[in-house]
Amino acid sequence: MRQVLRTTMTLAAAVLAVATALPAAAQFAKPEDAIKYRKAVFTVMGTHFGRVAAMANGRAPFDAKVAADSAEIATAMSTLPYVAFLPGTDKGETRAKPEIWTDFDKVKLLAEKMQAEMVKLNAAAKTGNIDSIKAAVGETGKACKACHDDYRKE
Amino acid sequence: MRQVLRTTMTLAAAVLAVATALPAAAQFAKPEDAIKYRKAVFTVMGTHFGRVAAMANGRAPFDAKVAADSAEIATAMSTLPYVAFLPGTDKGETRAKPEIWTDFDKVKLLAEKMQAEMVKLNAAAKTGNIDSIKAAVGETGKACKACHDDYRKE
Repeated sequence: MRQVLRTTMTLAAAVLAVATALPAAAQFAKPEDAIKYRKAVFTVMGTHFGRVAAMANGRAPFDAKVAADSAEIATAMSTLPYVAFLPGTDKGETRAKPEIWTDFDKVKLLAEKMQAEMVKLNAAAKTGNIDSIKAAVGETGKACKACHDDYRKE
Repeated sequence: MRQVLRTTMTLAAAVLAVATALPAAAQFAKPEDAIKYRKAVFTVMGTHFGRVAAMANGRAPFDAKVAADSAEIATAMSTLPYVAFLPGTDKGETRAKPEIWTDFDKVKLLAEKMQAEMVKLNAAAKTGNIDSIKAAVGETGKACKACHDDYRKE
């Protein structure tokens, strides 16, 4: 049983370690460093996605340059956080639900879906076409929400 | 006196708003959003710079791909935080010293120095030459520290 658990955990770490070549655990000295890092990535991603979404929803004036720059940053952030969902980082200052570590294959699919939608949003933002941006913001927002609904505490 | 203060504050915001075309204040709904954002940017930048620095200092095995990817992310982050040092964001969950808002011309120079060194580090990391990376990490680290020494609380 302990062996099974360890294998599962190792697999979870490996599956989620999509960002870099180094073993995920080697990148953070302490579990709280991994938690702080992934939260920071989500804050930066959310801020810049939110800036584009505000334009798409008419809550902010459309500025093609700001939209393009913001989408670029959000896209760069989208691949980073998953490597930091390491075993042992489900406790502490985090809203991550424990199911992340048992459903890691589903989390990985949700992450890839969000990343793919973010790439489309980035392409749309580069065209400067607000209608394309609106459509892409909708799909990207849904992809973000899909993971938040199931795997983030209120 | 009140007019002078307001002008100074407005200028500080304008000078620090180097990242985007939108007025800085319009980008954050609340002062705490700006604080949370800039701290998140520094966390992401510091994590990825730290990953390259660990290789440069022999604390981690050299991996050219991880070094290049990390330097790229740190460089992308380096221009982002300054727009978030808005008037009214010197209070709350922040280690920013009040001098940031009175010495904004000096802060801007320190920021530009750090950004320039980060660009050099990014170029060095792309070459994969560890000696070039070591030299660039040293200079970039000094540029980070210069601002921390004077403008960040312990």
